[in-house]
Amino acid sequence: MSAQPVISSPTNPRIKAAQKLQRKRARYEQGRLVVEGVRLVRDAWEAGARLQTVFYVPEQAAENTAVGELVAVLAAAGLELVACTSHVFAQLAETQTPQGIAALVALPELPLPVGCDLLLILDRVRDPGNAGTLLRAAEAAGAGLVIFGPETVDPFNDKVVRAGMGAHFRVPLRVCPTWEAVTALLPPALPLYLAEGAAPVDYTDVDWCAPAGLVVGGEAEGAGPAARAVATPIAIPMLGRVESLNAAVAGAVILFEAARQRRMAARLAAVPAR
Amino acid sequence: MSAQPVISSPTNPRIKAAQKLQRKRARYEQGRLVVEGVRLVRDAWEAGARLQTVFYVPEQAAENTAVGELVAVLAAAGLELVACTSHVFAQLAETQTPQGIAALVALPELPLPVGCDLLLILDRVRDPGNAGTLLRAAEAAGAGLVIFGPETVDPFNDKVVRAGMGAHFRVPLRVCPTWEAVTALLPPALPLYLAEGAAPVDYTDVDWCAPAGLVVGGEAEGAGPAARAVATPIAIPMLGRVESLNAAVAGAVILFEAARQRRMAARLAAVPAR
Repeated sequence: MSAQPVISSPTNPRIKAAQKLQRKRARYEQGRLVVEGVRLVRDAWEAGARLQTVFYVPEQAAENTAVGELVAVLAAAGLELVACTSHVFAQLAETQTPQGIAALVALPELPLPVGCDLLLILDRVRDPGNAGTLLRAAEAAGAGLVIFGPETVDPFNDKVVRAGMGAHFRVPLRVCPTWEAVTALLPPALPLYLAEGAAPVDYTDVDWCAPAGLVVGGEAEGAGPAARAVATPIAIPMLGRVESLNAAVAGAVILFEAARQRRMAARLAAVPAR
Repeated sequence: MSAQPVISSPTNPRIKAAQKLQRKRARYEQGRLVVEGVRLVRDAWEAGARLQTVFYVPEQAAENTAVGELVAVLAAAGLELVACTSHVFAQLAETQTPQGIAALVALPELPLPVGCDLLLILDRVRDPGNAGTLLRAAEAAGAGLVIFGPETVDPFNDKVVRAGMGAHFRVPLRVCPTWEAVTALLPPALPLYLAEGAAPVDYTDVDWCAPAGLVVGGEAEGAGPAARAVATPIAIPMLGRVESLNAAVAGAVILFEAARQRRMAARLAAVPAR
């Protein structure tokens, strides 16, 4: 087996092709995204995502055990590994101090869950950090589907992917540019709730043991009119003089209230009847 | 009244002095910080913070009603207003598209609350966005004090201030570089709980109606040994394969569980006995 040449030219066509994936349009045209760093590459791999090509910097794989071990695992699995210089790697990396490992991964399309009884819809959530944090929180709280609705950041934007910490490859997600497309994905008659700064119904008074969808709007402008027309507004009661919560915080607080209610109901059900 | 000259030189000593406040050391030496943008300047003003000097760009005050109105209110209140060109203003602004209004504000030192029964301690929280978001969530959940503990970002870092959305001027906060200093601020025998990824005690099984302190550690490394030695670890049960939550999300979920329990107890207490 001959040692593979190390790519040292930033104009190498494979590097240029990977670099293009920083743009949304190229991601959907090519049907793939770049994930970068030990943690995300490993998360994608362990979640069963389809890794295509792995780019790595041999010096960093030699110096950093975590990188070296991951490269070895991926090589042993038969994946195509492409060595490149750190200068070239910096072209496709979007982090400031790259760890020297990245992979091209097919856009995940996890099957829609059967009988999903808790789902999250992002409506006009433009902040990538909030969107990724919400996806991660949704997975942890047990949501079966996350819909990236109208005027919402692309889930495969690199900042969303980083904030998602691997949730992209474990929670079914769908992109719906219109509210009609959102509705088409929802189980019939699913009650929808919209997180608002103020509303007559407290989020803790909703029965989250029943199937439900939570809509979280963008922090600046909130949700759009289509979402408002169909979802019941609910509020997190706030003390102090805070006008609103961070969108990711508000969504997570409500999702974990749903998880809490479901856990309590399961505990009660597990108590033997006397 | 003669029109004030508009500062057009970036080397103007007042501009240089304000610019220095981007550094932590200068903030503590001068005992003040810069707050920037309509919302933060207004929040500081409405919360009763001591505004010293207001910098503004006359063109932006003329074009943007919100800026113009705020400038008028502050001028009417007798504050010193300093007009500068947008080029000069950009020197002291840390946002990318400044609104053309900023103020020097004395570092807030709100009095310690009497009988505070819910407080938040940040330990090794280095991410400014998380720290500011936690401060904002703490205010909304009714925490009476937020302690910026060891190895934690400075609360007056501009990104913390922006994420705090004015909470800096409404919630008492203290900076404690050592755990001894933290302890000195705590009521005697206050139970402390530490948010962890895994722990035998669920956060929902804690009695949050009793006085309590919540410790939130940094996302990468968690809390330090001193905090671990005194705080009871509690966990947010997580589904999926999420290893941990974003630090601000975890802290907020627990703080709002405390608020929920207290609200439920107050509701029960309000029900007349039969």
